[in-house]
Amino acid sequence: MGESAYVFSKAYVFRVPEGVELISYLSEFAAKNNILLGAIMVLGMLKDPIIGYFDKEQGRYRENSLKGTYELASSIGNISLRDGKPFIHLHVVLGGPNGETYSGHLLRAEVYIAEVIIFELTGGKPLERKQYGSLWLWDVYST
Amino acid sequence: MGESAYVFSKAYVFRVPEGVELISYLSEFAAKNNILLGAIMVLGMLKDPIIGYFDKEQGRYRENSLKGTYELASSIGNISLRDGKPFIHLHVVLGGPNGETYSGHLLRAEVYIAEVIIFELTGGKPLERKQYGSLWLWDVYST
Amino acid sequence: MGESAYVFSKAYVFRVPEGVELISYLSEFAAKNNILLGAIMVLGMLKDPIIGYFDKEQGRYRENSLKGTYELASSIGNISLRDGKPFIHLHVVLGGPNGETYSGHLLRAEVYIAEVIIFELTGGKPLERKQYGSLWLWDVYST
Repeated sequence: MGESAYVFSKAYVFRVPEGVELISYLSEFAAKNNILLGAIMVLGMLKDPIIGYFDKEQGRYRENSLKGTYELASSIGNISLRDGKPFIHLHVVLGGPNGETYSGHLLRAEVYIAEVIIFELTGGKPLERKQYGSLWLWDVYST
Repeated sequence: MGESAYVFSKAYVFRVPEGVELISYLSEFAAKNNILLGAIMVLGMLKDPIIGYFDKEQGRYRENSLKGTYELASSIGNISLRDGKPFIHLHVVLGGPNGETYSGHLLRAEVYIAEVIIFELTGGKPLERKQYGSLWLWDVYST
Repeated sequence: MGESAYVFSKAYVFRVPEGVELISYLSEFAAKNNILLGAIMVLGMLKDPIIGYFDKEQGRYRENSLKGTYELASSIGNISLRDGKPFIHLHVVLGGPNGETYSGHLLRAEVYIAEVIIFELTGGKPLERKQYGSLWLWDVYST
């Protein structure tokens, strides 16, 4: 077992209130429940989402602002530490009225419906993000 | 720990038979195994899927019927209770022959291949859907 | 409890080094850690991914080679056995600079960033892939 191994603690299953910003809400939820490491799955519908594409040349996220309400067709992510606090990293796949699809790194979105499952993991070394240029990343796994 | 916290019970991993309707099959699987709460992940290929986009103005799902066979590129969902029975909520991302992608809420689809993982959760308050207009939703999480 | 039921063992959470091929790396990780069954979630960015669409008429994967770097907007998969060794089955949803999306079965891709979570499952009957034509599948679940 390497340093990357953890055990299962609690699972949180809940619906986020309509109208709140998703990333902020999940950050507060993780902080309040002291979730230091975990996996996230979300489905529902989001309004006016802003999704990011990391542009390596520019060294920053290009922001794509979508207008309207989209099916949150898939969203997976993780919780780890940044500056000692729980940090949410969430990607999204969004479906429009005809099933047309946009996807990327979620920067922000208003919740219409969001059904969230968080798998809390404990028992191993805390996983902390460090700054690499304009990205905040975990150390790479080494054998 | 709020009322939204659960513990890990069993994980089910299986392949759905070719030709059956996916949502019905998973509903029967959950009922038969008495899975009252859980997370679902599926990958495989689906035939003639019908995906929904919830139209808030109309108060109902707009149905997009896709013809042919699609890679089930991502599918996450959950199991909770509706009218006291296990209810499947599943979203899908579907890839066509050139990788072109459609996504939304899965209404129905015939299985070509479906590899399913269900994480059963127990130990907390049952999560029951209630009718809000034409949607069936959990109560929102409250602190 | 059917033969498809397992229990939760460890969870592995790690970042894959930049520049390696993702499927090969995960295969080696699973072999080294002796992970015989599990669920996989990945997010990050991939370079020059090749995604497959299984063409039933031709009995083989059609390969779609994408050039450039894409947000790995969703990736779920599983680990089971093939020829007695851990085998990775991973699907991907990829977002381009404007959020445009391609998806399918991942054949190969170079990692730019890949944050991986593996849920290891144990305690049940090993799940082994068998050859059905040009596909390697689990036996279907039978009640």
